[in-house]
Amino acid sequence: MACLSIAEHLISRLVEVGIDAVFGVPGDFNLRLMDVLEKCVNAGADGDGPCHQALRWIGTCNELNAAHAADGYARMRGVGALVTTFGVGELSALNGIAGSCAERVPVIHVVGAPSLAAMGRRMLLHHTLPENILANSSNFRIFYEMSSRLCCDSAYLNKPASAAADIDRVIISALHKRQPVTIYLPQDIVDHPVPDAHAPLAPPDGSNLEITFFDSVAGGGRTMALVTARSDETSLTEATELAAMKINNAEKPVFIFDVGVHRFNLQSAVLRLLERCQIPFATHLMGKGVIGEDHPCYLGHYIGRLSETSVRQRVEDSDCLVVVGACLSDVNTGFFTSVEYSIEVHQGTMRVGKAWFTDVSEADALTRLTDLITPRHFDASRSFSRTSIASLGAEEDGETEGDTPLSNHHFYLNCRLPAGAVIVAETGTPMMALSHYRLPKGGSILMQPLWCSIAHPTHAPSAAGGGANDAASGGGCDHGESPRVFLFIGDGSLQVAAQELSTLVRCGLPVVVFVINNRGYTIERVVHPSGAHAAYNDVQNWDYCGLLSVFGGQRGVRVETLGQLREAMAAVVGGGCHVKGPMLVEVVIDQMDVPEGMMSALAEKAKMTMNNQTAQS
Amino acid sequence: MACLSIAEHLISRLVEVGIDAVFGVPGDFNLRLMDVLEKCVNAGADGDGPCHQALRWIGTCNELNAAHAADGYARMRGVGALVTTFGVGELSALNGIAGSCAERVPVIHVVGAPSLAAMGRRMLLHHTLPENILANSSNFRIFYEMSSRLCCDSAYLNKPASAAADIDRVIISALHKRQPVTIYLPQDIVDHPVPDAHAPLAPPDGSNLEITFFDSVAGGGRTMALVTARSDETSLTEATELAAMKINNAEKPVFIFDVGVHRFNLQSAVLRLLERCQIPFATHLMGKGVIGEDHPCYLGHYIGRLSETSVRQRVEDSDCLVVVGACLSDVNTGFFTSVEYSIEVHQGTMRVGKAWFTDVSEADALTRLTDLITPRHFDASRSFSRTSIASLGAEEDGETEGDTPLSNHHFYLNCRLPAGAVIVAETGTPMMALSHYRLPKGGSILMQPLWCSIAHPTHAPSAAGGGANDAASGGGCDHGESPRVFLFIGDGSLQVAAQELSTLVRCGLPVVVFVINNRGYTIERVVHPSGAHAAYNDVQNWDYCGLLSVFGGQRGVRVETLGQLREAMAAVVGGGCHVKGPMLVEVVIDQMDVPEGMMSALAEKAKMTMNNQTAQS
Ligand SMILES: Cc1ncc(C[n+]2csc(CCOP(=O)(O)OP(=O)(O)O)c2C)c(N)n1
Ligand SMILES: Cc1ncc(C[n+]2csc(CCOP(=O)(O)OP(=O)(O)O)c2C)c(N)n1
Repeated sequence: MACLSIAEHLISRLVEVGIDAVFGVPGDFNLRLMDVLEKCVNAGADGDGPCHQALRWIGTCNELNAAHAADGYARMRGVGALVTTFGVGELSALNGIAGSCAERVPVIHVVGAPSLAAMGRRMLLHHTLPENILANSSNFRIFYEMSSRLCCDSAYLNKPASAAADIDRVIISALHKRQPVTIYLPQDIVDHPVPDAHAPLAPPDGSNLEITFFDSVAGGGRTMALVTARSDETSLTEATELAAMKINNAEKPVFIFDVGVHRFNLQSAVLRLLERCQIPFATHLMGKGVIGEDHPCYLGHYIGRLSETSVRQRVEDSDCLVVVGACLSDVNTGFFTSVEYSIEVHQGTMRVGKAWFTDVSEADALTRLTDLITPRHFDASRSFSRTSIASLGAEEDGETEGDTPLSNHHFYLNCRLPAGAVIVAETGTPMMALSHYRLPKGGSILMQPLWCSIAHPTHAPSAAGGGANDAASGGGCDHGESPRVFLFIGDGSLQVAAQELSTLVRCGLPVVVFVINNRGYTIERVVHPSGAHAAYNDVQNWDYCGLLSVFGGQRGVRVETLGQLREAMAAVVGGGCHVKGPMLVEVVIDQMDVPEGMMSALAEKAKMTMNNQTAQS
Repeated sequence: MACLSIAEHLISRLVEVGIDAVFGVPGDFNLRLMDVLEKCVNAGADGDGPCHQALRWIGTCNELNAAHAADGYARMRGVGALVTTFGVGELSALNGIAGSCAERVPVIHVVGAPSLAAMGRRMLLHHTLPENILANSSNFRIFYEMSSRLCCDSAYLNKPASAAADIDRVIISALHKRQPVTIYLPQDIVDHPVPDAHAPLAPPDGSNLEITFFDSVAGGGRTMALVTARSDETSLTEATELAAMKINNAEKPVFIFDVGVHRFNLQSAVLRLLERCQIPFATHLMGKGVIGEDHPCYLGHYIGRLSETSVRQRVEDSDCLVVVGACLSDVNTGFFTSVEYSIEVHQGTMRVGKAWFTDVSEADALTRLTDLITPRHFDASRSFSRTSIASLGAEEDGETEGDTPLSNHHFYLNCRLPAGAVIVAETGTPMMALSHYRLPKGGSILMQPLWCSIAHPTHAPSAAGGGANDAASGGGCDHGESPRVFLFIGDGSLQVAAQELSTLVRCGLPVVVFVINNRGYTIERVVHPSGAHAAYNDVQNWDYCGLLSVFGGQRGVRVETLGQLREAMAAVVGGGCHVKGPMLVEVVIDQMDVPEGMMSALAEKAKMTMNNQTAQS
C-alpha cells in the first residue's frame, strides 16, 4: 500500500473498523483534515488513497448534535466518529461525549488543533484561554485534559513519528472498552507521512487483546470490528463450573440481560444459550429489545418495584438470578429497588455468589455456560406475549371512537410500527412510556436511560444510517423508502436541538418524527410535584408542523384525536408509503397526561429516594 | 433581615450585584432551587423574602444558549447568571463558559447537584459516570473539576455551615477577576438555613479588595457592582510619574484602548483623561466602541497590518504608544502584526518601558495620569470622522440604483441604524465586516473576537435586557418599542442555535435579526482557499423568513437588491416603527462576496501565520 499521511492513516482506520459516515462541523483548525476527508468522500469506493469503501461526511448544525449523532451511529454500527475544531467545537460536544462514556458507546472524537509550532510557542490564538495576560501566552492543554476525563484513552498527536501508533492505540482502546476516545490532530502535521507501511489494525504484540472483523447483520452486512480480551483458562473454567452448578441446582433460575449484551455484542451467544437451555429471562430498561421481545422465553421488563407486577413476581421469585452486562443505575433498577443477583457476568469479570473471577471473557462465559447448564423446558404460555403487557399499536382497528381526544396510552396503543422498526425514544415521558410497551417484531430501541440528556433527535439520522433505511442513507438520498426509523420526542427536548431535523431533510432520510406536544417539561412536573404548574416548566408553543418546511422538507400533521392519529399513521407507515425525507406528526396530549400508573409510581419513588438522601447536617 | 435559606442567600446576592434576569434550563437536580427562584420571580419587587427588585427567569431552549445569553447579559450589565442541572446541563454550557473565561466576562454558573447524601454514598444516579461498574459507584467530582478549569474560582457547597461564605467568596472573585465562577448546589441543602444574619456583600476583612455599588448608565440606571483592588501608593506614584514623563516627552503620543477598558469599567476615567489631555487614540478590535467613535480624538481601529492605512500610519508613527486593557491575541492584533507598545496599563499591573509595576489599580493609574500629563491640543480635523472610513448606513439616499443586487459593502452602507444601537456581530464575515465601519452615535457592539464561537444569536435577548430596549424586556413584553438591538448573523452561525430566536418571540423583544445568507461558511472558504468550493462548507438552505413564524412571531423579509433593503430598513427602523417582538431580514449575498479588501488581506495573513507555524519535525 502506498505511503499514507497521518490524516489518511486516521481515515483509513475509521473505514477499516466499519465507519462509513463521519459527523461534525468544520472550523479553521480542522480544515486541512477536512480537505483530506472530502477527497475520500469524492473518491468513493473506487478511489485510490485510503478509502476503499464509500465514506460520507455529514455536517451537522452544531457540535453537540454531531456528538449525539456519532453516538447514535455507534449504537447501531459498533463505533462512530466526529470531527470538531479546537476549543469552541470540542467543548460544545462534551455533553454528548459524556453520554457515550457513561453508556459505553465507542465514539472517536477527532479535534483539529492549532499547529504544533503555534502551540509550542503558546501563542495567544483565537479559541484559546490566555493563561497570563501579561505574557500573552495561552494554555493549549486545558481542553484536552477536560475531554480526556470523559474518555477511556486519548492521544495528543504532538510527535509525528509516533502519530500512527498513537491513533491505533486509542482506536483499539475504544473498541475494547466501548467508550469514547479523543484524538488531537495539530493542523500542521495532517499531511506528514506515516513512516511505516500501513498494516492492518492490530492490538500491540503481547497484549491479551484480539480484534475480530465480522459482517454484522444489524449493520446491514457491513464490517464491524470488535476487540476482546482472551480469558484465563483456569478462571473461566472455575467461574463457569461454579455458576452452572448454582443454576442447575436452582428450581427457578432466571436470566436478566442488560446493556452489556448489546455493547459487547453478545446477542448471538445469548440466543444460543436460550435455545439450548430454555431458561426464562427478563431485561432491564437499558437492555430493552437487546433480545427480541417475541422470544418464547421472554418474561418482560424488570426494573425493581417499578416493574409490571407479574414480571416482578417471576423475577423476584427466582432462586437463582443471573444478570449479564448489568448497569445498576437508579433509573435502570427502579430507583435501587431491584433485588440482589446471584451471578453477574460483566466484561472480563464474573461474580458467582461471593466469589469474583477476573480474566473471564463475557462471550466465553456464555458459550461455556451453554454447554454446562442442563437444558430445561420452558412453558412459553407463561411468557411475555401472554401477560397483560400491551404491544405498541395493539389496539384493534376502531376499537375506540375516532373522535376521542388523544391520551398518552391511546397514542401508543394505536402506534402500529412495522417489523424491524428502529425506535428512538427521548428522555422524558416518551422513554418512560415506550419502555412499558412491547416492541414490534425485530424492532429495537435507542434511548439513554443512564445519561438522560435531552438532545437526541440527532440519533435518528445515525440510527437510519446504521442498517434501517440503509439504502436511503448510503449516499443515495434520492429514492423513496418506507420509513423504518421512528423518533418519539417531547416538545421540550425537540427545542434543544430542533435544527438538526434539517439534516434529515438534507440527507433525504425517511424518518418519522412524533413530537409529543404536552406544553412543556411534563416529566419534571411529575417527578417534582411542587413545580407541576411552575412557569419554568413551560416552553414556547411552536408551530411544529411548520418546522420541516422551513428546513426545506414537507409540512407536518397535527393530531388531536384518535381518528386523526389513525389517518396519520396510515399515511406514514401505510402499505405503499415511500417517501423521501422525514415526516413529522405533532401529537397533542394533555399537559399532565402521563403513561398510566407508572409515572405516579415514578414520582413516588423519586420522592422516596430524595428523602432517603436528605443530608443530616 | 429574616433568616434566609442557602438558595435565598444565593438569589439575594445575585439581585444585590445587579442581576435582574437569570437564564437556564430546569432539570431534576435543580428543581428545588427553581422553586425558590420562581417564588422570587412571582413576588416581584414588592414581595418579601430575598428579592427586593424585580427578578426574571428566562428559560432558554438549551444550556449552551443559556451560557451565551448570560455572557451577553454580563457584557451589558456587569455580571450575569445561569442555572443548569448536573452533568448533562452543566457540560452543555461549557463552551459558553469558556468564552466568558477567555474574554473576561463574569458569569455565575449555578449547577443543581444531587443530594450530599447520594453523592456521599457515590450512588449510580442518572447523569453520572460510573467509575467502576463492579462497585456500582459514580464519581461526582469529574464535571465540577472540568468546569473549574474554566473558572477563576468555584464552590462545591458540601458544607451547609459555610455555604453562604463560599457563595460570597466566589461572587467577589467573579466581580474582581471578571471571569466565570461555578457554584455546585446539592439539592438537599437548598432549603438549609444560613446561620449568620444576612449582611451586605463585602470582601473578606483584611483583603485589599473593595466593592463599589453604583448606578450604571449603560445598565439603564440599575445597580452595578464592581470589585477592585486598592493600589500600593508607592507603586502607583512611581509608575504613573515615569509614564507621564515618557508621554510628556513624546512628540506624537497615541493611546490605544482595548477590551479591558470595558471590562474594568474604565470608560469615565478614560473620557476625563481624553478631555483634559486631548491625546489621539485608537482601539483594537475588542475595544471597538468602548469609547464613542464620534469622539474628536478618535483615530480609528488599529489591528496591525490589517488596519486601514491612515490609521496604521498614525499609530505606527507614534513615538509613545500607551495601551490600556489590551488583549494581544491573533485576531485582535492583525495576526501579531501590531507594533510594540511603550506603556501598558493592565488590571493591577503597569509596564512602562522595561519596568513592571504591580499593585497599581488601573482606574487609579488613569486618574493619576490625567493630572500628570501636560494637556495638548488635538486637531479634530485629523480624526476618524474625517478619514476615509465609512459609517454604517453612510450612503446617501438613492445614491446607487435600487435594482442593484446586494453586495456585502452596499448592505452595510445602507444599513442606517439609530443612535444608541446595540449591535451584536457574529464571528464570521459579519464581525469582520462590521469592524470596518463606524458605529452610529452612542452605539456599541458585542462580539467575541478572541473566543470566536459561532453561537451568539442568544446574545441578543440579553443585550436587549441590558439597557437597550429595557422597558420591553423588563418583564413587560406587552408594549411596542423601537428596536435598538441589531443582530448580524451568517446562515451557518444561525443554524447553530436557531431555536433561541424563539426566546426573543416569547419575551416580545424588538430585536432586528439580519441573516446574511451567503450559502454556507464563507469565512472558512476565504481563510482556507483550497476548501472554497468544498461541500463541507455548505449548509442546508432554509426558508429563513419562515423561522420566526414557526416560533410564534412574524414572517421575515428577504432582500436581494438595494431597493428591497431600503424598504426593509424603513420598515424595521423607520420613524414610527414600534414593534412587539423580533423582526428578521434575510440578506442574500453572493457566496464569495466578502468585505472589500479586508478579507483577502485576512486570508493572506492567515496563510502567513500558518506557514510560520509549520512544524519542522
Ligand atoms: C441537556 C439536558 N437538560 C436538561 C435536562 C433535564 N430534563 C429532563 S427531562 C426534561 C423535560 C423533557 O420535556 P419533554 O421533552 O417535553 O418531554 P415530556 O416529559 O414533556 O414528555 C428536562 C428539561 C436533561 N435531562 N438534559
Ligand atoms: C462553535 C463553533 N464551531 C465552529 C466554528 C468554526 N467556524 C468559524 S466561522 C464559521 C462559519 C460561519 O459561517 P456563517 O455564520 O455563515 O458566516 P459567513 O462567514 O458565511 O458570513 C465556522 C464554522 C466556530 N468558530 N465555533
